[in-house]
Order: sequence, then C-alpha cells, then structure tokens
Amino acid sequence: MSLKNFETMVQSVKSSPKRRVALAVGKGYDEYDVFARVMKEGTADCVFVGDKAEIEKKAKEVSADISKCEIMHHAGPDSETTLEAAKLVNQGKCDVLMKGRVHTDDFLRSILNKEFGLRTGNLLSHAFIMYPKLMGRFFIATDCAMNVAPTLEQKVSIAKNAIALARGLGLEQPKVAVLAAVEVVNPKMPVTLEAQEMTQMCERGEFGNALVHGPFAFDNAVSEESARIKGIKDPVAGKADVLLMPDLEAGNIMFKTFAYWAEGQLSGLLLGAKKPVVLTSRSDSAETKYLSIVSAIYYDNYNRQNN
Amino acid sequence: MSLKNFETMVQSVKSSPKRRVALAVGKGYDEYDVFARVMKEGTADCVFVGDKAEIEKKAKEVSADISKCEIMHHAGPDSETTLEAAKLVNQGKCDVLMKGRVHTDDFLRSILNKEFGLRTGNLLSHAFIMYPKLMGRFFIATDCAMNVAPTLEQKVSIAKNAIALARGLGLEQPKVAVLAAVEVVNPKMPVTLEAQEMTQMCERGEFGNALVHGPFAFDNAVSEESARIKGIKDPVAGKADVLLMPDLEAGNIMFKTFAYWAEGQLSGLLLGAKKPVVLTSRSDSAETKYLSIVSAIYYDNYNRQNN
Repeated sequence: MSLKNFETMVQSVKSSPKRRVALAVGKGYDEYDVFARVMKEGTADCVFVGDKAEIEKKAKEVSADISKCEIMHHAGPDSETTLEAAKLVNQGKCDVLMKGRVHTDDFLRSILNKEFGLRTGNLLSHAFIMYPKLMGRFFIATDCAMNVAPTLEQKVSIAKNAIALARGLGLEQPKVAVLAAVEVVNPKMPVTLEAQEMTQMCERGEFGNALVHGPFAFDNAVSEESARIKGIKDPVAGKADVLLMPDLEAGNIMFKTFAYWAEGQLSGLLLGAKKPVVLTSRSDSAETKYLSIVSAIYYDNYNRQNN
Repeated sequence: MSLKNFETMVQSVKSSPKRRVALAVGKGYDEYDVFARVMKEGTADCVFVGDKAEIEKKAKEVSADISKCEIMHHAGPDSETTLEAAKLVNQGKCDVLMKGRVHTDDFLRSILNKEFGLRTGNLLSHAFIMYPKLMGRFFIATDCAMNVAPTLEQKVSIAKNAIALARGLGLEQPKVAVLAAVEVVNPKMPVTLEAQEMTQMCERGEFGNALVHGPFAFDNAVSEESARIKGIKDPVAGKADVLLMPDLEAGNIMFKTFAYWAEGQLSGLLLGAKKPVVLTSRSDSAETKYLSIVSAIYYDNYNRQNN
C-alpha cells in the first residue's frame, strides 16, 4: 500500500486539521489513558458523552489527564447515551464516533437510527488494519468482529467496505483474497464455492477497480513464496491486501493470533456508516485503541478529499 | 508443559535409541534436505519407499547427502507406495510413518488399511505443536489440517487425541479450550453450544484427567491478563494447553497466521493411528518438517514407556 506504516498515518493525522472524536462512555469505562495521549499529542479533540461526575472520578483513578477534553453530561441509559454521541457526528459537531463501555446493541442501533444516526443503507462490517512486523506492510482483515456467519451477499458488502478502506490507505486497485482452508474449489467446502462465485462477480465488474479472487489458503494469499511453491498463478496470490474471512470464528481467532502471538500493530474500524466508527474491545491494547482513533480520522480525511 | 521447548525435545530424541522413519516418497518429492539433516545430526534413520533412480537424482539436484539413507525401491502407483511404507511401520521395521509427495487420500487409506496399516478405530486428526516466542511455552492447536467440519462426536475424538499428545509433552492434566469467536454461550453461534456440551461431558468424566472447557475466545484462552480483564474465572482461562478449533477454516487460517506472521516454531503430527504419523505440506518450512519428525519420535518414545 502506498501508506507505509502506522507511524506515517499518525504523522499525517497530526499535520491535518484537528478532528473531534465523540465517545459514548457508559458505566465503568476507564480507558481514559488513550484519550489523555490523544489530547497531549494533539492528535484529536475529544468529547465524552456520559455521566460527568463518574467520568472525572474514573479518569482520576487511572491518573489520566483529561482536563482538556469536553464532557457532555448525560446520565441516561446506554440507548440514549449512544444516540447523543451519534447525533454529535450526524450533525457534524464531531467527526468520528467511538464506543466506550455501552452495550454494543445500543451502539449499533444508534448508528442505524434514521433520524440521528449514520446510516447509509450499506451493511455495517468490521475491519482490522494490520501491520505484521515480519511482513513490513499493511493488510486488512475482515470481518473478524461483527458479522457472525455472513451470506454470500453480505460477504460482497464486507468486501466492498474493505475495498473502500484499502483505497483510503492509498491503493488504487486493492487485491482481495477470499480465504478458505484450501486454494482449490471443493464442493465439500462451501466457502470455496462462495469464493469462486465472488471471483466470477469480480470478472463481471461487480467490485469496480479491485481484484476479488479466491479461494486462497492464508499462506498463498500473503506469501509469494508459498504461492510459487503451490504453483498458483493469480495476480492476488501472495499479494493480497484484503483478507476476507470465511466467518467470524476464523476471523476472530486469526486476528487474536496476530494480536497475541505476533509482533506488529493493528487498528480496528467499523465500516459502512457515513463516518468511520471506532469499536474496540476491552482487552485490546491501549496502542490498538489509539491507532484505531488515528485510523478513523485518517480514513475520514481521505473521504473528505475524495468523495 | 513440563517439556520446555523444541530444543529440549531435540536433545531428548538425540539421546534416546535411534528410531527409523519410513517416507512414502511419491513423484516429484525433493525435500531431501530435511533428511540429510536428520541423518547428519543422528536424529533418526530414514527409509525412503519409492523409485530409487528418481530419489537419487532429485536428492542430487537439491545437493542433499542421503547416502546413508536406506532406499526401498518401489516404482508402483501411490496407493502401493503408501501401503509399502505403512507396512514397514506396521511390522515394526520402522517407527514413524511420513508422507512425501503422494496423494493424501492414498496415504490415509494405507494408514487405515486393516491388514497392513496403523488403524486403531480412533478418528485420525491432525495437531500442531506450537511454540510462539512471545509466549515462551508450548500450545497444541487442533484440527488445523484434516477434519473439515467436525461434528461434536468428532470434536470429542479430536480433543482426546490432543489430550494424549499433551500428556506426551509432560502434562498431567491437560487444559483444553474449546474455541469460538466469543467466550459466552450464544444460541446464534452453534460452536458455543458445542463448547458447552463438551464442558458438561468433561464434568461427567468423559475426558479422564483433563479439563475440557469452553467456549473461549482465543485471547482469554491463551492470555491470563485478557481472562482477568473479561472477568472469566475458569481454570482453563488464560492457561489453555490445547486449542480446539471450531472448524478447518478457523484452524488452518490460525496456524498459518502463526507460521507466517509470528516468530516461533511449530511441528505437525497426525494422531489416532498406532504410531505418530508425519504429514506436512509442501509449503511448510524445512524447520517445521524437521521438528515434525522429531516430535513424532519424541511422542513415540513416550508411548513406548507409558502405554
């Protein structure tokens, strides 16, 4: 990808006009260190939507200086907090929406709210931007966090969301590998048949200027050497930018194997809404949360300039 | 696990009586460098079953010194080559069976052959022994290479095969995490219901002196910190030795994410036969192939002493 790494992304965001992040806080949220860093480094401005007294207490407990963050007091249930936060982005008062410790269902419902949300009609899907140190370049893995058992139609939407993100990272013609356990079509493995169908859709122009090919096993999607050994001649083989996961189990286990066992960095975004949305998990590292905010702003900046 | 790492395993094998590996060669096999190393280091003796002239030619092409390896000339079809190799192990002339470039179906059929094979009545399943450098200990991941969409009954067999292997690595009470995308039972995710059933089977004593619990997401199976953050109180949480995969797609993508993006070592074994069987893929590294032979011998030595 033309964007080299996360350091380049961070620098780009810092040197662009400062954007505003709206956080739907929720009960028990205490990851304020990320926002203290965001404010201190000047990466973005932050607006916390939640119970003012609790926010200040919790931030103090974790010694996070959030004195320069704005707090929009709101002590209602999650369904209302999330809607207030979404509204800030909907009305252009903030640029990026982020989930705190509110219920995911409430959060998603607020995004999809017709009046105040960020609905586009597209499927919402999650994508990780990964930078494995051993590979020295970006990959997008999707969907590892949201859609449980996507149908073929949903996989097409997930691929399209990821292709748009890949363009945001500077790729003119993103290469999407439809992953399976093997690199050959096998009727006993329905995922390989879906991969074949998506390849045909790609040939018919369904994905615009992008290559969506499959099935690939992980190795011959990411490693040119492995593709060569297996004798696979395909422009996506060994050069995939986007790894389209068979289902949530495969995606979730894959991303966590990377996050826990490999050296590298990653960020996560929710795609398919009017604006990039940050939806991290409690067990994600502080760095992943920080880079997720940065990625959302970077992608939003790209969309402002190009759409 | 009481066995610390692959170096310890290699040392143990080198200091034990020398075992014999039977390789079903097949057309186009050229990974003789692994056997050259095995012979040079004195790890094992090797018997190649296949076309003598081709074996010698190929070994020369890749500059592998296999002069001390035994060649059992056999120029028939794969189905016969594999059966000849299996027979050597069946008759006690060799200790470990390994697949070369023969068709996997022929290879498996020979293992299951009633007269000359290594059939036990157990399900055959594949297990990887992984040593992620960042974790500094062994994990067993199964099934990442063989059973496509195992039923609950098959998962029980896969777990039992892995538990036996874990004992071979020195674990008295192996901890098996039944993996899903989440750590809670969710009727919309059948894998989590299976995990719950396996947990109940474990409570009824189905797995002997082993803990089989689930569902777990990958992070709270392997990381105590993640289990703590998510508030999971379970003796397997964060301490899993065996990672039981939801299906082949998840397992295959997981193992390759580890093999290609993380630092560490891994070996692969086929379990459920009378003797450990080595079944590697062409794109596996030479080190993985070497360590797979070592692991098979190590496990066989354990079984000789304990069964």
